[in-house]
Amino acid sequence: MSKEITSRAQDYSQWYNDLVIKGELADYSAVRGCMVIKPYGFALWENMRDALDKMFKDTGHVNAYFPLFVPKSLFEAEEKNAEGFAKECAVVTHYRLKTDPNNKGKLMVDPEAKLEEELVVRPTSEAIIWNTYKTWIQSYRDLPILVNQWANVVRWEMRTRLFLRTAEFLWQEGHTAHATKEEAIEETVKMLHVYADFVENWMALPVIKGVKSESERFAGAVDTYCIEALMQDGKALQAGTSHFLGQNFAKAFDVKFSNKENQLDYVWATSWGVSTRLIGALVMAHSDDEGLILPPKIAPLQVVIVPIYKGDEQKKIVDEKADEILANLKSLGVRVKYDDNDNTRPGWKFAEYEKKGVPVRITLGARDLENSHVEIARRDTREKELIHTDGLAQYVDGLLRTIQRNMYDKAKQYQQEHITEANSKEELIELLDNKGGFISAHWDGTPETEEAIKDATKATIRCIPLDNKQEAGVCVWSGKPSAQRVLFARAY
Amino acid sequence: MSKEITSRAQDYSQWYNDLVIKGELADYSAVRGCMVIKPYGFALWENMRDALDKMFKDTGHVNAYFPLFVPKSLFEAEEKNAEGFAKECAVVTHYRLKTDPNNKGKLMVDPEAKLEEELVVRPTSEAIIWNTYKTWIQSYRDLPILVNQWANVVRWEMRTRLFLRTAEFLWQEGHTAHATKEEAIEETVKMLHVYADFVENWMALPVIKGVKSESERFAGAVDTYCIEALMQDGKALQAGTSHFLGQNFAKAFDVKFSNKENQLDYVWATSWGVSTRLIGALVMAHSDDEGLILPPKIAPLQVVIVPIYKGDEQKKIVDEKADEILANLKSLGVRVKYDDNDNTRPGWKFAEYEKKGVPVRITLGARDLENSHVEIARRDTREKELIHTDGLAQYVDGLLRTIQRNMYDKAKQYQQEHITEANSKEELIELLDNKGGFISAHWDGTPETEEAIKDATKATIRCIPLDNKQEAGVCVWSGKPSAQRVLFARAY
Repeated sequence: MSKEITSRAQDYSQWYNDLVIKGELADYSAVRGCMVIKPYGFALWENMRDALDKMFKDTGHVNAYFPLFVPKSLFEAEEKNAEGFAKECAVVTHYRLKTDPNNKGKLMVDPEAKLEEELVVRPTSEAIIWNTYKTWIQSYRDLPILVNQWANVVRWEMRTRLFLRTAEFLWQEGHTAHATKEEAIEETVKMLHVYADFVENWMALPVIKGVKSESERFAGAVDTYCIEALMQDGKALQAGTSHFLGQNFAKAFDVKFSNKENQLDYVWATSWGVSTRLIGALVMAHSDDEGLILPPKIAPLQVVIVPIYKGDEQKKIVDEKADEILANLKSLGVRVKYDDNDNTRPGWKFAEYEKKGVPVRITLGARDLENSHVEIARRDTREKELIHTDGLAQYVDGLLRTIQRNMYDKAKQYQQEHITEANSKEELIELLDNKGGFISAHWDGTPETEEAIKDATKATIRCIPLDNKQEAGVCVWSGKPSAQRVLFARAY
Repeated sequence: MSKEITSRAQDYSQWYNDLVIKGELADYSAVRGCMVIKPYGFALWENMRDALDKMFKDTGHVNAYFPLFVPKSLFEAEEKNAEGFAKECAVVTHYRLKTDPNNKGKLMVDPEAKLEEELVVRPTSEAIIWNTYKTWIQSYRDLPILVNQWANVVRWEMRTRLFLRTAEFLWQEGHTAHATKEEAIEETVKMLHVYADFVENWMALPVIKGVKSESERFAGAVDTYCIEALMQDGKALQAGTSHFLGQNFAKAFDVKFSNKENQLDYVWATSWGVSTRLIGALVMAHSDDEGLILPPKIAPLQVVIVPIYKGDEQKKIVDEKADEILANLKSLGVRVKYDDNDNTRPGWKFAEYEKKGVPVRITLGARDLENSHVEIARRDTREKELIHTDGLAQYVDGLLRTIQRNMYDKAKQYQQEHITEANSKEELIELLDNKGGFISAHWDGTPETEEAIKDATKATIRCIPLDNKQEAGVCVWSGKPSAQRVLFARAY
């Protein structure tokens, strides 16, 4: 049995690492900053990916695949994008290793196999994709292009954390091309809503939809839309972004089209992405000191059945009942497992599945079965109840939906309780230090003030909420006039 | 309308490239040897991937994800594997670009950001995975590990061809760990059968299952099992491999377990993979001079409906009928599209969907509809027939199955007609030059003879078929004694 999980109160950061590693989602690897996503963690990602993929396809998108490598000359073509990612990119310079003549059994880079042009391992794919779109787009009839890619990307982060910030991560990146500005903006906002829908309805995690301030924009974007979630320690986490790229990439890669009036114009672009970082958000938002708590809709395993018996006769009765429940639940589409491994005791199993966040546990005790009862334990509330075996599968199926809703409601309540208005510098600091969450405060709209607040408080502007109320006021930091409140928070 | 497709007779190799590019499966990219998989090609890959993934899960495997990079010290640990891949690997040496002071707007590798240890972009993942398994495996209770990974890999090939041989490609790689040699061999063979099942029943492509000769083995394997398919030009194509790795990787990475007798032993390994190369095989095996011919079970689009009408009144009748047929086919799970784009004429559409290999075309002519008939065109045989609209969906659904079977049967017949025995050097050469296909011939079992045959004829031993007939004879090349015939062929 693995060691205990550090409590949140004791060390929030260590609690998170314990959950990820002891919950068997992921592990460190031999490669600096890269993680191994373990089978349990990957099954979770598969469920998330499949749900998102369906949402993308339902909104008219198709998948494609572009090269892992970006030649340096393409990488540097869109200046701001290049500037934003140059500091953290892995660069391939050679295409061969050879035997090291001075070191038996070792290899060395072959100096004769130096690439003429260095290749950047993609940190994001705008450059390689827009260079390709140039050949795909001639006329307005070729538009829109609504393409998504599921891929690995690499950003050489110096301080990494499992899922939240890793040198390599998995993500999807949508890259769309449009004939008009309006259509591109509509697409940008549409995908933001798709992300919000997914995170709220599948991950049970409420988000705030908004627009980033200029200094928090994606490198190369005209506008960055985002969804922001709140973790249990009061810190915010950016859960997804959708960028309106204007004509920046079309200009950098010379992608023009002839419009309906037969005039040449640059193509309008969007890009949008979510990544395995979402798993980090999921873990931090819902879990407790006993382990993970996974929302039923994406949990790899929704129900586990654990038997308790003594002797062969009881075992036979319990096994038969388990088979029946298993079949009934499977017929309802429930992901369920019967853990009849007799190398481990029931108590060990209880702790193990709690740690792994399985939403519902059914304990099949020979005693209870005599009265046609089984014990049901909910992971989210840790409540237990005895339930009659008649109609059990339907009951459990309904309970999974209840748990999904309850997890969302709980997180929503936490979020609502952690959006607070601050009307002075002192209030802003006090709230950040003692309460956390989103602080709604007036800001004068300048990057200078934003920077000053960040330097002094470590808080950033998470977003300007969509459909934000316009309300005249004074900036809490500079005292200058402000047209609206924005949301500040310390963030992951 | 895109240019015509080169005929097979004219230039087989160009015909293949035309199909891939004009059929919109893939395209060249700005990165040497890397391709862009276009949406239509990727939809095909998704169907293949999903079918395989289900087969892997049905045989007890789970997915996981391991790092893209392999530190050089791990890469070189298993000597033969390292030797096999060192000559063609992309190497990351730096983790940052910086502004080039001598070249405005350009970036350069930052010499101060040199990695302490070079990272190899994975050409295959045995090294990184077995280095991880070391921490997962202590006891026989931790075994077997049945893990698969869907990933991109990079092998710096000098002569590349779309799908068949690209610097980066997509694949799956299974990596399993076992307590006994027998169990590992059983797994190796089981996955070979899974591959054969998939290629035959989904891709409609018959294969020969066998074992590679020593010199054709995977670098680091004890035995390599393979499935070999035959292309229309008589050349063979290795469609999948499954390796019994013995204890080679366990020894290289010191992965030991305590067995049931509480003794320490090295773990037994297998690995197995298929890649986007399969798409190349699919294209070359089935297509004709008009374009692709895709097997219905994996075709992105199974049925296309094309309307022919004049004027609004006819259009209304045709549209209504199309909607009805569309709904009926969809309810049967058929992937179908109604192409009512009026920017292109029916003749153009016919050619376009032929080129793209859509198995069935339904032409809805206003005239035919007056008699409750529609025209059905099969892509595989190019036969057309008038069919009554009553029960049309069921008919088409059945036709898709017929086409799938017919494609397999045709390929099987071709394969059977192209397995020929040769009993002398002259016969072997004559058959290779004038007929192609698999040549079944006696071989003395030595790598020297194998090499001599390859040098003289460009043919390699494709495999020693499973359950090969043991039959004493003399080697066609050396005249030395031979215990069995093996299959020679020129290959992709």
